[in-house]
Amino acid sequence: VTAAWAERLPHDVETPALLVDVGVLERNLSRMARWASASGLGLRPHAKTHKCVPVARRQLAHGATGLTVATVGEAEHFADAGVHDLFIAYPLWADGARAQRLAALARRVHLRVGVDSAEGAAALGELVRGGGGADPEAPGGDIEVLVEVDSGQHRSGVPPSQAPVVAAAAARSGLMVRGVFTFPGHSYAPGASVRVAAQESATLAEAAALLDERGFDTSVRSGGSTPTARHSDASSLNEVRPGVYAFNDAQQIALGTCTASDVALVALATVVSTPAADRFVLDAGSKTVGADRPPWAAGFGLLPDHPGTIVSALSEHHAVVSLDTASGAPLPAVGSRVAVVPNHVCNAVVLADELLAVEGADVVERWPVAPRRANR
Amino acid sequence: VTAAWAERLPHDVETPALLVDVGVLERNLSRMARWASASGLGLRPHAKTHKCVPVARRQLAHGATGLTVATVGEAEHFADAGVHDLFIAYPLWADGARAQRLAALARRVHLRVGVDSAEGAAALGELVRGGGGADPEAPGGDIEVLVEVDSGQHRSGVPPSQAPVVAAAAARSGLMVRGVFTFPGHSYAPGASVRVAAQESATLAEAAALLDERGFDTSVRSGGSTPTARHSDASSLNEVRPGVYAFNDAQQIALGTCTASDVALVALATVVSTPAADRFVLDAGSKTVGADRPPWAAGFGLLPDHPGTIVSALSEHHAVVSLDTASGAPLPAVGSRVAVVPNHVCNAVVLADELLAVEGADVVERWPVAPRRANR
Repeated sequence: VTAAWAERLPHDVETPALLVDVGVLERNLSRMARWASASGLGLRPHAKTHKCVPVARRQLAHGATGLTVATVGEAEHFADAGVHDLFIAYPLWADGARAQRLAALARRVHLRVGVDSAEGAAALGELVRGGGGADPEAPGGDIEVLVEVDSGQHRSGVPPSQAPVVAAAAARSGLMVRGVFTFPGHSYAPGASVRVAAQESATLAEAAALLDERGFDTSVRSGGSTPTARHSDASSLNEVRPGVYAFNDAQQIALGTCTASDVALVALATVVSTPAADRFVLDAGSKTVGADRPPWAAGFGLLPDHPGTIVSALSEHHAVVSLDTASGAPLPAVGSRVAVVPNHVCNAVVLADELLAVEGADVVERWPVAPRRANR
Repeated sequence: VTAAWAERLPHDVETPALLVDVGVLERNLSRMARWASASGLGLRPHAKTHKCVPVARRQLAHGATGLTVATVGEAEHFADAGVHDLFIAYPLWADGARAQRLAALARRVHLRVGVDSAEGAAALGELVRGGGGADPEAPGGDIEVLVEVDSGQHRSGVPPSQAPVVAAAAARSGLMVRGVFTFPGHSYAPGASVRVAAQESATLAEAAALLDERGFDTSVRSGGSTPTARHSDASSLNEVRPGVYAFNDAQQIALGTCTASDVALVALATVVSTPAADRFVLDAGSKTVGADRPPWAAGFGLLPDHPGTIVSALSEHHAVVSLDTASGAPLPAVGSRVAVVPNHVCNAVVLADELLAVEGADVVERWPVAPRRANR
């Protein structure tokens, strides 16, 4: 059992701020790592959730095989901190300065990149052969690629039947095809996780079989969102890439992936206004917790210590909290502090310069978040 | 007539990036300034939209009386750049380090702050008398306050009938009451602007009359969102605080406040994937353009050069664009570049380290955005 957030809120910290309970974080990291190990799956956590070197180090200490990132900038951020095995799970378009940055990365870390088109593969291949154009005498390092397949989210990624076409283009371009990956983002819907995990496993299995037939290496078959990871079929996948599991958030509670006591990150907010008996206002708005609100979410985040409330509206610097007056819950005092669980923690973290690591109600460390430029 | 964005997209810039067309920006600033001047209204633009000193300087050059900001951090950012007249349009809770920062600000600029509760006023008053606790020998500078009233958004702000209670508490606390303000955020709905502007004007007039009766100074009566500003009743208000008008965005187009040619800021994005005939994917996701999507918006932003498209889904680093194949519009090539107009420009700017000022397709300046810590 985890203490109420009310007992874990530091008093000497300016609001709004993002707090990470180190004990809960460690428990989340350990659970997923033990599960992956017991299932015989590689765990490559997605670092876009935390963008924090101290969290990445803890994930690697728990046995992660490397990190997943979304951008070249995130890869650079973690490479600078000594992480040497990185997968950019994104169909990168490698032109201009980005090509040079990728080539430089490939020379210093074990780099794997997503690809889902012949054009994208050709551009990546050019930089491997030419070093990104920066220095024709210094060709880019080796780049491994995974073909992205669509397991039903209908975002990027080709249907499995097209995977051999993309793999062939990549091979022709001088890239090392190592397998397939997918992101089952449609698992972010109530009741979807088991069904979507089955789709994800089937899609990866189908694509890998088609590549096998044509003699491609399929030693990596990578999937796994936070909602689906623990439902993965270890005979189809051999790597999972959950991100949110490190912190959890209001979406994961609503999806049933975790309970409120598994939430490791909250926004610390001050009650700035109590203008009516059924409403109070916090200083943590969309520029602190992010504006994400899927249609199935009850509000724009939740207040774990204030049952009977809904974050009913969010502006940039205001969260309006509706209070069910029939519940008998009192209106908090102006100046008091509350914890807010963001709907989608990744989009809260990107707005902060640092995360405050707390043990009990003490800030024990300040963890810098990668700079905004790392979003590209 | 403004050129298509396709003719204004620089080729040597990494994506995603935020571009500002300097000519359109200047036209937007000039129009609002000329209108305010002709209407006899003070213009105090809200700088949370741009968080950029170069844009603030242009607004002041066009005759703005000062700036509006949302946080102490934004006030510090602009004070450091020499802006000496600042209104923090927010019911600040002045405790701890924030009180010290406010007191320091009040000693160096003309500072006005919002207040909507007796408790908030008492905390502000303490710092004026005591200098925020940092140095008991150096009391805080003078702080003017405006009482925040609720004109129908039901966020912060008291009903006009309660304004005298808050003003009296502020006066007792040693603060200089200078008038009233409101933010009519419910003007962000189709067809609402004229009606909401009338509510805003009536609310300010009612609150000011009640304060007048009790002998309070009401020399400032401040309102004005971008949708309502130009409908303001100059007999009720004497100051407007629009923010978005500098750049405009997809919401303002949908509300009819501006046309597509008035949009000064776009995200420059690359097409990274064309996995199906009716869909392409851009590298500008919610970590570039923000996740805001009001129920009345057609999508998560819009592509001005690609009619017949809808930004139908947004993840952190992907925008999925649906293409109406019946329109005959071609799927853009992987690697090509497009402009994306964010739904809500304020929540795009906060995610960027800098805005790229363009003239034609040339980047002429790079404007730093206030650091993330300025969000508090």
